[in-house]
Amino acid sequence: MATDQRVVRIAELEIVPSQVAEYTALLAEEIAASIEREPGVLMLHAVSHKSEPHQVRLLEVYASQAAYEAHIQTPHFLKYKTATATMVVSLRLIDVHPIMLAAK
Amino acid sequence: MATDQRVVRIAELEIVPSQVAEYTALLAEEIAASIEREPGVLMLHAVSHKSEPHQVRLLEVYASQAAYEAHIQTPHFLKYKTATATMVVSLRLIDVHPIMLAAK
Repeated sequence: MATDQRVVRIAELEIVPSQVAEYTALLAEEIAASIEREPGVLMLHAVSHKSEPHQVRLLEVYASQAAYEAHIQTPHFLKYKTATATMVVSLRLIDVHPIMLAAK
Repeated sequence: MATDQRVVRIAELEIVPSQVAEYTALLAEEIAASIEREPGVLMLHAVSHKSEPHQVRLLEVYASQAAYEAHIQTPHFLKYKTATATMVVSLRLIDVHPIMLAAK
C-alpha cells in the first residue's frame, strides 16, 4: 500500500458572536479559492453549530505537508487570515488520523 | 435558490481506549456500506485525534431528514450500533450549518 502522505486536521474556532456573518463570508471565499486554485488542497469542510453559530469547525485535508505549507503562503489565505484576525476569539488545531473519508 | 434539505451533523465520540482498533474497523465497514448502498448518505468522514486516538469525530451529510431516518434502520447501521454499543463511552451529536463543504 502506498504511504498516505495526506495531512488531515480539525480546526475548532470560536468567533466573536457579533462578527459571525462577516467571518463566515470571508471563510467561504477563502475555501472556494483554495479548492479552485490549489491542487494540493483536497478538502475544506466548514460548519457552525446550529445552537451556537460562533462555534465553527473545519475538516481540512491537504495532499502533503508541502501542500499545506504552500497553502498558508497564498494571497487568498493571507487575505483571510489578516481580515479575520480580530474576529477569532480562539483557534485550536488538532492533527487527526483519517479512519475513513467517504463521499459521493 | 433551492432550499437546502441536507442534514449536516458532527458526532463527537469517546471510545474505550483498549477497543479503539476494533471500534475503528467496525466504523470503517459501516461507512463503506452506507456510502455504497444508500443514495441519501452523501458524506461520512471519520477521524481520530492523533494524540488521543480514543477521541473520534465524524462529519455526516445526509440528503434529507428522511434519508437519515432510513439510514439508521439499515442492517449495516444496526450491526455497527449493536457491535459497538459497549465500546462507546460517550456520544455527542451536534446539528450544524454548512458554511461551505468543498472537496476535489
